[in-house]
Formats: sequence, structure tokens, C-alpha cells
Amino acid sequence: MTAQPDQTGSPPGPATGRIIISVDAMGGDAGPSVVVAGIAKSAEKNPEIGFILHGPEDTLRKLVAKRRGLDGRVEFRDARDVVTMDDKPSQVVRSGKQTSMWSALESVRNGEAAGAVSCGNTGALMALSMIRLRKLPGVNRPAIAILFPSSNPQGFNVMLDVGADIRADARDLLQYALMGASYARNGMELPRPRIGLLNVGTEEHKGRAELKEAHALISEFAERSNFDFAGFVEGSDITGNAADVIVTDGFTGNVAIKTGEGTASMVGGLLREAFKYSMLSRLASVLAITSLNRLKKRIDPRRVNGGVFLGLNGTVIKSHGSADDTGVSAAIKLAFTLAQSGFTEKLAARVASTGELTQDVAHANEAPDS
Amino acid sequence: MTAQPDQTGSPPGPATGRIIISVDAMGGDAGPSVVVAGIAKSAEKNPEIGFILHGPEDTLRKLVAKRRGLDGRVEFRDARDVVTMDDKPSQVVRSGKQTSMWSALESVRNGEAAGAVSCGNTGALMALSMIRLRKLPGVNRPAIAILFPSSNPQGFNVMLDVGADIRADARDLLQYALMGASYARNGMELPRPRIGLLNVGTEEHKGRAELKEAHALISEFAERSNFDFAGFVEGSDITGNAADVIVTDGFTGNVAIKTGEGTASMVGGLLREAFKYSMLSRLASVLAITSLNRLKKRIDPRRVNGGVFLGLNGTVIKSHGSADDTGVSAAIKLAFTLAQSGFTEKLAARVASTGELTQDVAHANEAPDS
Repeated sequence: MTAQPDQTGSPPGPATGRIIISVDAMGGDAGPSVVVAGIAKSAEKNPEIGFILHGPEDTLRKLVAKRRGLDGRVEFRDARDVVTMDDKPSQVVRSGKQTSMWSALESVRNGEAAGAVSCGNTGALMALSMIRLRKLPGVNRPAIAILFPSSNPQGFNVMLDVGADIRADARDLLQYALMGASYARNGMELPRPRIGLLNVGTEEHKGRAELKEAHALISEFAERSNFDFAGFVEGSDITGNAADVIVTDGFTGNVAIKTGEGTASMVGGLLREAFKYSMLSRLASVLAITSLNRLKKRIDPRRVNGGVFLGLNGTVIKSHGSADDTGVSAAIKLAFTLAQSGFTEKLAARVASTGELTQDVAHANEAPDS
Repeated sequence: MTAQPDQTGSPPGPATGRIIISVDAMGGDAGPSVVVAGIAKSAEKNPEIGFILHGPEDTLRKLVAKRRGLDGRVEFRDARDVVTMDDKPSQVVRSGKQTSMWSALESVRNGEAAGAVSCGNTGALMALSMIRLRKLPGVNRPAIAILFPSSNPQGFNVMLDVGADIRADARDLLQYALMGASYARNGMELPRPRIGLLNVGTEEHKGRAELKEAHALISEFAERSNFDFAGFVEGSDITGNAADVIVTDGFTGNVAIKTGEGTASMVGGLLREAFKYSMLSRLASVLAITSLNRLKKRIDPRRVNGGVFLGLNGTVIKSHGSADDTGVSAAIKLAFTLAQSGFTEKLAARVASTGELTQDVAHANEAPDS
């Protein structure tokens, strides 16, 4: 049940001043070789990161040995079982102690690592994270936040929840607003982020009942907290400049990001076709290659695929199941950045400080009945 | 309350063999001049269309007089009031008899026109359509279906509901599947469309309770009906090739299409920037202009913005509030194509023929309790 410390190999931890990221090598669609390739990419770019790698140790040691850049940067934790995409979260929670995912979270729980990254089953990762790391005091429902390319000055919007939970009531949406604001402040250096609540229109009478209620709650908090409330926003604002943080339930958020990613992929594919169409367009693509590569990098979903679980005692990053080395490397970078900024501690303080206010608002709302 | 027939001007109707489309000139963000420009574009492309135009007659006559291509193609119905984007549907239903929107639907109701097009307030247009045209027998909740660019052979997916109603239960989703299948068969010439049910994952245990129930209902009907059920699909499949018709509730569908449109616009904007970046890339954009224009046309949301209201006695097309002349023209073309194919009559027959089956399934589901 507990992780087996690896006594061989050079220590990548505190002795070297590195920030240690715990990585689940298994559970992604492409297997551990892609995860190790992503670690290698990350290690090459950032000498301040060390890794603890979880999975079948013999296999992982072989893969790591092929990457010279990983010498002395990786510790191993042998884990024989793998959480598959088909495993139900409840089943993993009951009998997943030997899995690489469980082991990866254990390294965060026991303080060996500053954050965990996994490409595996989202539902299982969230369920395990809630049980092993536990929710921050005052958080009702953790959320998954991602960065989505937008026309904002910073180039990205934060969006949450994108799939931790398929339902959210008004109070959950308020908590997402607070957590998203904190993430934007600390992770994106936006001192006063603009929060938007996703709806089918921007008019205040539109949308579901829980959205109208959440609108009132968030308005109330915006006055006392360090963010601006942009009110209701629409799907088109996810890539727009109306807000820095888009708040929604996990069902809608999940559909929205997958729609956006699908659209970007489709346009990219059509663009490639367009450039193959004629001799002139082939020549054009050669001339424009630098500009096009810059564009591709800007909108590449793999570079922003790291979703962060907000509201837990510890940083957990969920990467796409289909992430390649670039995607894994982006997720690791996000874990590193958050660890470096002391994000979890700041978020904990933030949520704790709002607990009292939540009660105030609850009392205010209940007053007419009491 | 009733429309005032216009006795002046040459008749664009049956005498000329034209299919008449009723157009609400008011209510769009850009005003009637853009709507008239869209009509002119449409008239130029298709000599078989005639128009009845609803709004302040003096203004509209002046705008139409400027377009020589519209000579003898347009009748007018004077309507002094306008439904604004802020008007509540219930209010328009009560006191909107003098509006151009009401008048536009009246021309469909009394058989003067084969279909109506409006850029106005969606909620009001749906509420008025339900009251003036009434639902087809057997339809519980009409839906708005749009075409979205995809990597399908036909280049588009049908998606519904994208905003007629923010909620849908399992039986509504089944009806959307049947209506969407009928639309795909008749409007897109797909004899056996593949129907996908939008969810946060493709595994059968995932998602909300009503989705699991709808999955079972649609599976049941696919066996007896003329479509294939592709099961659960995800946001990325909206632009993909897993299904031809994407079924979802109007809240999720509305957010998804706006997200997709926003993403496509953002990528297009970044592409324009990329081509301006250097002398080489400017040259490239000149060389590739034909290919790029073809791509732009392929994904231009304005060309597919016509949403069709399914489940009513008559064709009603909702165009974007921000539609320009191209958008208005695309909506008119869709109304024309559907009128030409006798779509409403076919859909009515389809829904009527499934009424009995719905009862069978209902009985089968109720059997354990009776």
C-alpha cells in the first residue's frame, strides 16, 4: 500500500535543490515510452525539475536509461498495476493500491514530491486524489481547470470545471469562481482577474435557475474579493477577451473544451490540405513556414493540455490520455510552475478566508425564512 | 393582427413559379440594410426565390429600390414594431402582434410563404413559432438544428438542439434524434444517417442519468428506424466523423456551437496575423490566396449559420443576430432548399409514424409496474 522508496540511483530531491514532480508513467493511450519521452523533454528544458516515476520499475528503468539527459534526475517507485480508461473510479478507490496512479499520488501525500502528473483515467484520478490528498478545508467540490488559447493579452483563459464533476450547483459555481480567480492570480500573474459565468446568453434573465443564483452569489463576492465579475459569458467568450476565468459545470466545460480542440484540429487539418492544393500554395507554405509554426505553437492543444485539480491538499495535473511527449512535458511544466509559486498554500489561505463570507451570504439568503 | 396584403408591385409568388420566403427585416444587430443586402445576394444567386419582406414599409422600399436585382422579386408587409434582443419571449407572445417577426411567421401560417427567416431574438422567435405555427402532432419540444463544419464526407454535421430549450429529458433527446435523422435524410441526402448522443465520454456508464436513459431509448428506435446509432460521442466529434447528427440539450448545444465558432474565428484571426508577420509571409499569403479563400469559405460560420426549427408546422430559420449579408443569404438558401424538398411534410409523416412506436416503448418501460 505504501510506496517503496528507491535506495539506488542518485537522489534528485532536496539535496540538489530541485523541485520534484511525481509522474504516473502508465495509463496514457500511448504507454510509458511517451511519458518518459515527455520527462526527457521537460528535463532538457528545465534543470530545476527532478522526477519520481511510477510504474513497472524494470520497464521504466530501461526506457529512462536510453535518455542520457535523465541521468540522476529520476527516482523509481515500482507499481505493478495500471488504472485503465475503462476502470470505474469506485473500483480503483477500493482496489487500486498497487497501481501507478495511486503510487504517484502517494509521493505528493507523503511530501516527497511537490505535485503529481498522470495521463490516466480522469474520474479515477480525481476520486483517488480526493481520498488520498483530501479536499482543502472549505472546498465542497474540487474542479479541473485548464488553460484555453484566447485573444486575451495573456493569450489564455482559465476554464473550470472541465470534467471533475458533471453537476454543479450555485454554491459550487461560486467556489469555482474563487478557485479560478486564485489560480489566475498566482499561476498567470493576473492581480485582478475577470471572472465570467458561462451561459447561453449574456442577458441576466437567461439560463438555468442555478446559474441565476450563482450570478447573484459571485456578484456578492466580487465586491469583497480580488476579482472583477464580468457576469454571464457565452461559448464564444471562451476564446475571447471578455473574461480571464470561465466558470461552468464539468459537463458543459468538458464538451466545450473538446469542441474547441476539435475545431482547432479541423481547421489545422484543412489548412494543411489547402497548402498542398497547388504548386503556388506549396511554395507559399515554404515561405510562410516560420509564421505558421508560430501560429501552430500558439494554438496547439498539446501545449495547454495540462488540467490542474483545484481544491485539494496538493497539486495534481491531469494530462490528456492521448498526450504525446509535448503534452506530457507541458503538464510537468505546469506542475513545476505551480509548485514554485506556492500555489496550493495560497489557495488554501484564500479558501479559508472566504469560508466566513460564504456563511455570511448563506445567512443573508436564509434570513427571509428564519 | 393579420398581415396586410400588399396590392402594389408585381407578384413574386406562384404566378412566377417562385418559392416564396418570408423574411423578417428587423431584429438583427445590423438593421434592415444588411437583411436587404442578404436578400439581394440570395436573389442574384437563385432566380427561383421570391421574397415577402416584413418591417417598416417606407424604409424597406427605399432599401430594396437601391438593389436592381430585387425588381419584381419582393412583396412588402408593413410592420411597425420590432422584437429586440432584450424582449422576453412571454412579452412578445402577449403584445407582439405588430412586430415584423410576428408578421413574418404569419406569411408561413397563411400559406403565402414556404418558410420564414429572422435574425431576431431566438427565444421570442421560437415562442411565437410554437404559438402561431404550432408543434407537429407528436412533437413534445421543438429543437433548433444547425449545420457545423466537420471532417465528414458531406463536410457538415447536423447538431440539435442548439438553443430552443435549455433543458431536455430522455424522451426529448429521443425526439431530437428522430427529427435530426429526418433532417439529415431529406436536407443532406444521407439515406441512413449516424446519430450520436453528446456526452463527456463514450463509455456507457458515463454522464447524466437522462443521457443513459436516452441512450437506451435511441438504441431501441435505431433498430426500427432508418438510422444508425453511434452511441455516446464527445465534443471533439462535433467536428469529426463519428456521427452525422449530434443530439444534445439546448444549453450544451448552444455553448458548444459558440465555442466552435469562437475557436474558428480565433484561429482565422491568428492566421491573418501570421501572414502579416514578415515580407516572406506576406508574399506567401498572396501565393496561397486561392487555397486560403477556399478554406475560409469551408469553415466560415456565416455560411452555416442558418439554424432550422424542427418540429413545427412550417419551416422557420433563425439566423445569427450578427449575421451579415452572407449569413442572411445562407439562411434564405436553407429555407429554400427545405421548402423545395418538401421537408416539413416528410418530417410530419416521420414523426406521426413513430408516435405508435413511442407508445410501444413507453408501454414496455412501464410493464414492470403494471
